[in-house]
Amino acid sequence: MASKFSYNELSRFTQSVFKAIGCSDSDANNATSVLLSADLRGIDSHGIARLVGYVRLWEAKRINATPDIRIVHESPSTAVVDGDAGLGLVVAPFAMQVAIDKAKTAGTGWVSVRNSNHYGIAGFHAMMALEHDMIGISMTNASALVAPTFSIERMLGTNPIAVAIPGGTQPPFVADFATTTAANGKLEILQRKNGDAPIGWVQDKDGNSSTDANALKKQGALLPLGSDRDHGSHKGYALGSIVDIFSAVLSGASYGPWAPPFPAYVPMPENMPGQGLGHFFGAMRIDAFRTAEEFKEHMDTWITRFRNATPAPGHEKVLIPGDPEREMEAIRITEGIPVVDSVVEEITALAQKLGVSAPKAMAH
Amino acid sequence: MASKFSYNELSRFTQSVFKAIGCSDSDANNATSVLLSADLRGIDSHGIARLVGYVRLWEAKRINATPDIRIVHESPSTAVVDGDAGLGLVVAPFAMQVAIDKAKTAGTGWVSVRNSNHYGIAGFHAMMALEHDMIGISMTNASALVAPTFSIERMLGTNPIAVAIPGGTQPPFVADFATTTAANGKLEILQRKNGDAPIGWVQDKDGNSSTDANALKKQGALLPLGSDRDHGSHKGYALGSIVDIFSAVLSGASYGPWAPPFPAYVPMPENMPGQGLGHFFGAMRIDAFRTAEEFKEHMDTWITRFRNATPAPGHEKVLIPGDPEREMEAIRITEGIPVVDSVVEEITALAQKLGVSAPKAMAH
Repeated sequence: MASKFSYNELSRFTQSVFKAIGCSDSDANNATSVLLSADLRGIDSHGIARLVGYVRLWEAKRINATPDIRIVHESPSTAVVDGDAGLGLVVAPFAMQVAIDKAKTAGTGWVSVRNSNHYGIAGFHAMMALEHDMIGISMTNASALVAPTFSIERMLGTNPIAVAIPGGTQPPFVADFATTTAANGKLEILQRKNGDAPIGWVQDKDGNSSTDANALKKQGALLPLGSDRDHGSHKGYALGSIVDIFSAVLSGASYGPWAPPFPAYVPMPENMPGQGLGHFFGAMRIDAFRTAEEFKEHMDTWITRFRNATPAPGHEKVLIPGDPEREMEAIRITEGIPVVDSVVEEITALAQKLGVSAPKAMAH
Repeated sequence: MASKFSYNELSRFTQSVFKAIGCSDSDANNATSVLLSADLRGIDSHGIARLVGYVRLWEAKRINATPDIRIVHESPSTAVVDGDAGLGLVVAPFAMQVAIDKAKTAGTGWVSVRNSNHYGIAGFHAMMALEHDMIGISMTNASALVAPTFSIERMLGTNPIAVAIPGGTQPPFVADFATTTAANGKLEILQRKNGDAPIGWVQDKDGNSSTDANALKKQGALLPLGSDRDHGSHKGYALGSIVDIFSAVLSGASYGPWAPPFPAYVPMPENMPGQGLGHFFGAMRIDAFRTAEEFKEHMDTWITRFRNATPAPGHEKVLIPGDPEREMEAIRITEGIPVVDSVVEEITALAQKLGVSAPKAMAH
């Protein structure tokens, strides 16, 4: 079902793929760090499994391997970045760095990005702020798969939000979540297993609740966080909308149902109101509010108190956002990253096509 | 069951109550506008129904009617405001104005507030940004009623988030929602009707799903948006936590289970790690990203496209966040505000106690 690869081996391979399509050494290096952070952190849908998809977008001339990424508008605490159709994996860290640099002088930095592509996991970019004693925020719009409350039409992407907050002696608080009840990657796992989805994840083409993990292939839609009106789906719909507007309407990217699709075989929407995908980044310097030392002491108190909240029967403890991903990373960096067979086949074929050497699985 | 009052009559009465406890004319006026905006917008739990509660907090010396509200720390785009235990209804608009003023020069403004109290509806403060062609953001922590995923302990308030975004010819996008599946106000309505709550709103003291609208009075807890782990409650828990941290850990307010309770008869938590409740406000000047004209044209396109998304069978149309509240306000400003009998009795007794004249109901 799956083979294990060392991080270093996947990293070598991924860098060679990005170089083969024309990326500079440093872009290939950065894009690889972003992409594989998903595999390390256990968000398998957003890592090496997507590499073939990025290459297909490059083949379809929707990704520019040598972009001229630039600031097109700015104020002391803001900027708009044009990604020049580059890999989101390269555009996003550039833009997040602009936010961090703005925060150094203005206290906070906020960057909206247009003309980009899929940027990997939202959390990677938010976490760039941590080493600067800043809070990092990252969000992106994406291809429309989600129906607003009361609708059967796919209007929004899974539009994730990530927020990374430094701790002191405790590890950081890192929330990173799609604004849907379930991420699309969870449906893909069920599809491979021929499993049913819980009610509340998807609806069918007529707007009825469905347990069909393949509902999206039958004109169904993902549901906003909250699932239905009684359980607050209008809140998930509002959150996804805010991500769309901050990422794309503010920057001049394409939004809502006009967001460009990730699969290269899907035609681009007609009459797109902006350029490419959009992202939004924020960096807030802690000491623009109170000393970082004081803040981090209180974060340690906060984290410790929540981790020690009385657990419900059958649960060992309360988790802090970021705990599961950090624990997964610690395991996978030493024990290797499992890659399912279908993805191994895809990347092996990709290696052959691009004339780079395929990654070698770890010995059993 | 309920009597109707004109907005002007409730406004006159509410101002006279705030003046009777020692507020200045302008503070009484501002606090009234904030408080009654809840009644106008149909969020009855946060309006005149809470007036008696605010007065009780003043009687318990937890609210200071003549606060010295001040900036205690700042950078070009940030500030921390100390509310001096004032009414949140007065502290919040002060702090939001600081955010707006920062945004005028720095592009954005971000203000974290400590030592405050309940601030009415989150949306009021966010909407202050609209007339300046800015996006407004408002959030607050609150008394702990919500159990994190996998816990039976109440650790977070309903911690709302509001985001207001200007439109052009279309009305603004105004999202304003608790980060729980259902706001506490909705439970209160069911309690009055002896109704059952849908599964997913609350859990009992042992962490089991419950339909008991009175579960909170029996050591149960509200559930984070998403209701359970399978439906994304860890996302609602993360959102509520982010609100708590931005509002209180960043400012030096009290956080998590130590947030001060609204009912004056509930003792203050021991070993509070900060002062009072906390809020967080943001203002982003649109033209720090792109021209306001261009942005608002695209917002009109966004809003129109979403409003015209194919509705699900049985639903007339897709709503834009803010639509229901705006429609309610248009009705109530002309036809009056219904106030349930129990609240009428409370405010009549309050009028008598403070020696002000009670509001007169409209003729039937």
